[in-house]
Order: sequence, then structure tokens, then C-alpha cells
Amino acid sequence: MTQRVRVQNFGVSRDGIAAGEDQTLENPFGGDVDPGALFSWAGATASWPQRTDPGGSRGVEDYLTRDFAHGIGAEIMGRNKFGPQRGPWPEDGWRGWWGEEPPFRTPVVVLTHHERPPLTVGETTFHFLDAAPAQALARALDLADGQDVRIGGGVTTVREFLDADLVDEMHVAIAPVEYGSGLRLWERPEDLADRFELEKVTAASGVEHCFFWRR
Amino acid sequence: MTQRVRVQNFGVSRDGIAAGEDQTLENPFGGDVDPGALFSWAGATASWPQRTDPGGSRGVEDYLTRDFAHGIGAEIMGRNKFGPQRGPWPEDGWRGWWGEEPPFRTPVVVLTHHERPPLTVGETTFHFLDAAPAQALARALDLADGQDVRIGGGVTTVREFLDADLVDEMHVAIAPVEYGSGLRLWERPEDLADRFELEKVTAASGVEHCFFWRR
Repeated sequence: MTQRVRVQNFGVSRDGIAAGEDQTLENPFGGDVDPGALFSWAGATASWPQRTDPGGSRGVEDYLTRDFAHGIGAEIMGRNKFGPQRGPWPEDGWRGWWGEEPPFRTPVVVLTHHERPPLTVGETTFHFLDAAPAQALARALDLADGQDVRIGGGVTTVREFLDADLVDEMHVAIAPVEYGSGLRLWERPEDLADRFELEKVTAASGVEHCFFWRR
Repeated sequence: MTQRVRVQNFGVSRDGIAAGEDQTLENPFGGDVDPGALFSWAGATASWPQRTDPGGSRGVEDYLTRDFAHGIGAEIMGRNKFGPQRGPWPEDGWRGWWGEEPPFRTPVVVLTHHERPPLTVGETTFHFLDAAPAQALARALDLADGQDVRIGGGVTTVREFLDADLVDEMHVAIAPVEYGSGLRLWERPEDLADRFELEKVTAASGVEHCFFWRR
């Protein structure tokens, strides 16, 4: 089996915005971008890993949340997905946003200009790498031990991997909100149709799910 | 985790027909029912297990085919899904429609009034059981070793398990064909809306995917 490079369950607004400009500890997505609005479709499914109550929907969106970890051997994320710090790492004990059991449970490559030793939290080990997308991907493919690599975001990282033409497959969920300003994945999904097949499917939640795979 | 009872990737026509009346060795679905028309959406996906060429789509329908085996520990099928024989089993060496590696790779309970010893083909073992749906399900849940049980069809078997209210979750793909006569799953999907939540999603293939889960 060939290893594939996948973007999964990535959330944007109708106007293509995935994050605000000014991320902080209190406002992880920055700006006016509300992760609750972008990801409520996922939180409503039975398979959402952070569910605290039983139940949840088992429609098409449940397939998307329960597939998240299948066949994935490593993730690549930008530094801003790991934490709100900038510049050299402070000695603040930061171990990511996710508490003592991050949902990745695989090696994760964190792109940063400030390398540091790997950090293991629960079943996830974060590797901090100062590298261009192709180099980071080579490392992640190796860490993934034959399985696929997820490009986990944020939006700047997804854009970098798309610009370097390193993405094989992508699922983006367009939530029924608009933000007007912020960090954009695209002007519109069709921007990518030169390189990718595109299927758009609307779920009962009102979210439009866009699936891309290489032509 | 509770074990669930699931119908997956079950195919019907727009008028609810899943099979013809007169199944034979040469015509496994019977009547005018063409499995190619009912299941072409699945065959077009990258994850379809019987693919003979590389490629295939990786849109929403690929999630449906690649999820087929995840979390499933056993299947229950009607005798007609196993073979075209009727009455006492002839000594014809029949080992199912699927060759030497059936796609189930779990225990399979075959409902028949004519019990016979288990038959192992590849990674699948068929257990032949003369039992009502609830008894057959108890056996399959035991064989599934903590995982879910798939009700694999045919349509008469799915109807029996629905009538006995033993199905927790069901995905039915409505293909854009009509047959007029044959064995019907339903008059329309909404017939089941008293007991199930229903989400309907149309894929680029023109197939309408119906997802049901208990209210």
C-alpha cells in the first residue's frame, strides 16, 4: 500500500476562513473564529472522541469522525496548533492544548523554527522540527511506519502543503457561518479543481463537506 | 462499548427493490435486478475490496466502503445470500459465491432450516443455524467477541430483523434505477422514521444514501 498524505475534518467558514489573526491562550482559533461553530457538526456525532454524554448522531458525519484515526500513522501540525507561544520556547510547562491524553496517539511532527527534544504526552509523541514541507513529510512518512500521514493544520500549514503539491486527499467541512476576515484556506473550493477531483455533499447539519482527491 | 447491530451498504432501487423473486446460480440477485446497477457507486471507490485496477474515487462513498469491516465481529445472512440451493443441502461442493477468500473475514451465521457443520473458507467461517432472529443474533453477538454484528442481507433477512426491532443502525444506498417488481425493503425510507432518525445525503454518483439510527 502506498502511503498517502491526507487532510481530514478540516473546518472552514463559507468564506474560507479557518482561524483569526491573533491567536491567544484564551482564544485558540484567534479573531472572531469560534471553533464551536466550525466543528459543531463533528461534536454532534456518536464517534466524537471528546463526547462526555452517550448518544450522538450516526449519519454521514459519524463516518467522518470515526474514520479520523483509521490508517493514520503520523500527523504534521504547525506550531500554532500546538500552542500559543511565539519565538524561543519559554519554560512554561506547556504540553499542548489537549491535556494528558491528546487525541492523536501517533507521532506528531510540530513545525517550528525553534527545535527542541521530543515530548511524549499520553500515547502521543511530539517531534519539533525546523524543516520545509517536503523534509517534514519525509520524516513523518518514516515515523508513520507504512501508514498514512495526516496534515493536521492550522490553515497556514495546510496551505503550505497544498502549495508544495504534497497533499493526496483532503476533506474540508464548510460550516454555515461567515467571518469576513481571518486566515483563509481558499477563496472557493473550486480553486483546487485543477489538481483534484472534487465532490461536494451537504449533510443534514447544513455543513457542506468537500472531498478532494488527486486527478 | 455496547455491541451494535448494523446494516451497511445495503442497495435498493428507487422503488425499494433489492432482489428479484427467482434467484439462480446464473442470476444471483434474481429477476431483472442488476447488482451492477445497485452497487456501481461502491465499485467506483478506491476502497472497494474487489478492485482489480488502481485508482477509484475518494469522496464520501469511499468512506462507506472503507468502513465496511471496521468494528464488525460477525455477520448474519440469509441462506439465499450464501447460495442458490433450496431445501436439504445437495453434495455439490458449494462454498458460497465468493471464491477462496470471502470478503467477510469474521464468523458468519447463515440462517437455514437445514443445519449442517460449520464451513471455513479462507478467513471466514460460516455457521449454519435454524433459528429465529433473536436467537441468531444472540449467537452472532457471542461469535463477534465484543464487536458489532452486521446484518448482511438479503432483503428478506433485513426485513425480519427490522420487524423484530433488532437493528440499531442502517445505511441503505438508493440507486437511480427502478424495477417495478421484486423483493422490497420498503415503500419509502420514511416508513422507518417512527423508530429511527433518518439522514438522507445525495452523492455525486446520483445515489441517495440513507442513514438510520435509533431515536
